[in-house]
Amino acid sequence: MKSYTVIGGGAAGMSAASRIRKRDPDSSINVFEESGYVSYGPCGIPYFIQGLVNEAEDLVTYTPEFFKKNRRIDVSVKSKVLGIDAGAKSIRALTNGKEITLNYDILVLATGSSPFIPEREWLEAGQVFTVRYIEDAITIKKRLADSKNIGIVGGGYIGIEMAEGFSALGKKVTIMEAMPQIMPNMDADTAALVEKAVIDKGVKIEKGLAVKGIYKGKDRPGVIVETDGGRSFFDGVILSMGVKPNTDLARTAGLKLGSTKAIAVDDHMLTSDPSIFAAGDNVEIRSLITGGPVYVPLAPEANKEGYVAGTNATGGNLAFPGTVGSSITKFYDMEIGGVGLTEKAARAAGMNVRSVTIEGENMAGYYPGGSEIKIKLVYLAESKVIVGAQALGRGAWGRISALSVAIQAKFNLNDLFFSGIPYAPPFSPVWDSVIIAARVGKES
Amino acid sequence: MKSYTVIGGGAAGMSAASRIRKRDPDSSINVFEESGYVSYGPCGIPYFIQGLVNEAEDLVTYTPEFFKKNRRIDVSVKSKVLGIDAGAKSIRALTNGKEITLNYDILVLATGSSPFIPEREWLEAGQVFTVRYIEDAITIKKRLADSKNIGIVGGGYIGIEMAEGFSALGKKVTIMEAMPQIMPNMDADTAALVEKAVIDKGVKIEKGLAVKGIYKGKDRPGVIVETDGGRSFFDGVILSMGVKPNTDLARTAGLKLGSTKAIAVDDHMLTSDPSIFAAGDNVEIRSLITGGPVYVPLAPEANKEGYVAGTNATGGNLAFPGTVGSSITKFYDMEIGGVGLTEKAARAAGMNVRSVTIEGENMAGYYPGGSEIKIKLVYLAESKVIVGAQALGRGAWGRISALSVAIQAKFNLNDLFFSGIPYAPPFSPVWDSVIIAARVGKES
Repeated sequence: MKSYTVIGGGAAGMSAASRIRKRDPDSSINVFEESGYVSYGPCGIPYFIQGLVNEAEDLVTYTPEFFKKNRRIDVSVKSKVLGIDAGAKSIRALTNGKEITLNYDILVLATGSSPFIPEREWLEAGQVFTVRYIEDAITIKKRLADSKNIGIVGGGYIGIEMAEGFSALGKKVTIMEAMPQIMPNMDADTAALVEKAVIDKGVKIEKGLAVKGIYKGKDRPGVIVETDGGRSFFDGVILSMGVKPNTDLARTAGLKLGSTKAIAVDDHMLTSDPSIFAAGDNVEIRSLITGGPVYVPLAPEANKEGYVAGTNATGGNLAFPGTVGSSITKFYDMEIGGVGLTEKAARAAGMNVRSVTIEGENMAGYYPGGSEIKIKLVYLAESKVIVGAQALGRGAWGRISALSVAIQAKFNLNDLFFSGIPYAPPFSPVWDSVIIAARVGKES
Repeated sequence: MKSYTVIGGGAAGMSAASRIRKRDPDSSINVFEESGYVSYGPCGIPYFIQGLVNEAEDLVTYTPEFFKKNRRIDVSVKSKVLGIDAGAKSIRALTNGKEITLNYDILVLATGSSPFIPEREWLEAGQVFTVRYIEDAITIKKRLADSKNIGIVGGGYIGIEMAEGFSALGKKVTIMEAMPQIMPNMDADTAALVEKAVIDKGVKIEKGLAVKGIYKGKDRPGVIVETDGGRSFFDGVILSMGVKPNTDLARTAGLKLGSTKAIAVDDHMLTSDPSIFAAGDNVEIRSLITGGPVYVPLAPEANKEGYVAGTNATGGNLAFPGTVGSSITKFYDMEIGGVGLTEKAARAAGMNVRSVTIEGENMAGYYPGGSEIKIKLVYLAESKVIVGAQALGRGAWGRISALSVAIQAKFNLNDLFFSGIPYAPPFSPVWDSVIIAARVGKES
């Protein structure tokens, strides 16, 4: 009977554990998770803050008891793994108040990521929060319930989702972004449209000013945020400045890291140690576009990486081919999606690209309730192969879904022009915006 | 200066004419259209009937005057082309009450399709209508305004769209379908779910009973429909039994027809006559799945075929690669989409296929407003290459868009499993239904 240990009970860890159970019914499987929950969806936290989701626990798909009972997976929450002895194939963990040592045949590292915090003492200002765990959700909701004035440091996906959440509750919200634009993983032209939508909802944006310090309010409870532009006072502050891979345990095991500073794995999710797999926000994967290493800490990738790790941990042979890096969010009614490389990123990588941006409608012009949708395609100048896309407006999710598959398939503009985006008046114009973008690019 | 004549002012004809003008600015372009409108969207008629679109003219994208003024395209409406003399390169047309003869250098045949009507005299029963032209929309709306009891013969896309339209107006609606199921281009299992949704809205379905006759009501105004099951009385009847290509003019020019009885064209949309192109609902095209000939009278195909014909008519070199045959509609809240082959059709074509059907959610489980979505994938048993998909429920449009691209790219289940359907709680669960379907198929 083989013994599997999984460190981390998020998407990747529980996906790996479940896959192991399915493929190796007689094995023992131990999962250690530092927080109080496993199988949780941090992506739902902004909607819990907004009040669209009633209980923070609703964001949890399955409980430890479920895994124990239905899948015979032994889950220990509030349990911290202290170190890995790769030579002895054992881990040391602090669980139920005592330190234990556990041997493994196969280890899966799914330690995830942590919010990036430039200075640890910023958190000591009080009323300063990151958005990562169910516990964060509960704390933020309670501690900022009566607040009126919220500062959000970092205007990426989580930043604008939290901005929607707080502004929908009637709070005054300011997004502070060090870069010259919010949504740093979009191009400036598309990000400008997001900025307009954000400002139109009364959210203030301060761009191009890096935060230098965050302090406890002196004369009144609250937080002072200091930037090059001066000092601002908030009742509460959210830090959403991106995430970094949790690799401390990997280092104790002597595992190789990649150029992105996440754990290096092969396409079977195997680390540099033949008994240790890794999956999720702690690993470096391959871009399906450039072929090079990328760090893409997204939930669908984490789930599939866990699935692949669990398959191969049990003697299977499944390759994780890589990612095109699709993402989507919304700010109120505006869906905001992207896949692949931005024009900026492609040029920075030395690629000779061109782009086309078009504005279309998300329904037939005569059908009631339609609205504008913006599509930007980034493609190689010579071959016209598409390497990236951005979409803004209602219906962006569906367009980015199709474009993600097209980019994965290495479609050029001609292939995309002839693709079968289905048409009916309530869903798209007969010339869908994606097809028009391909046509305009082709003809230019 | 070259002279181009286009017969038919629908999607394909106007797309071809516009493309010709763009590529050959100095040419003369004449378009002849039998109805009173060009550039119209018959797909919108059910929504006009329902009252979602105020004026039938709203379904017209551009008027003849627009084409004349902005694109210097000479459009003659209410003008019937009587014959083509391919040897003399001329057509005879009846326009403005007189017969004219016009020479062409290049002719584009975009004569479209006509509703299939088994017996012409059915129309003489009065209050019996087909759904094709703007004029039909106006007539149906006026003549059936006060009707209470509508019969719809044929339960395909147009049939259920018209059923929604009339039932939303509070009328009693009966769909009569000769086949054992409505939506004959879906598999029986998915069609059964559409039937349930239709019946749940109070629309009656009579299946497996072919219509034998349609007569004028004897004792009261209205229509009697006779099937093997007996006679039913309606205030009005819609015939939506599919369409057939209009090939009469093609025959006068001696053009070859294909095995589907539509006009045969090569991938440049050139007919068997080197001076005649054809595009739209009158042509036979190639399936990207089987490589064989198919008849796919859909608006996006017609538009692109017209674009290709116009490109090549002006000395260009653009191939229409074929179609995966994506389609979408809705019945109230249920989106209903399909692409490629049904399981039934694939087996009938001798293909060794398997299928997987799964039921998922269209949003994260905790996000408010989510609902069920059903995905069926049809794939080759050995290679696992996907040859068809069906989707039912809100969000089907986006899933079918992605699946259409995947089928065009000849994805197998593994490729699809690793595709980048983007995730955020308001749009999909972290394991989207499409990905789950691929996974279940892979594992089976």
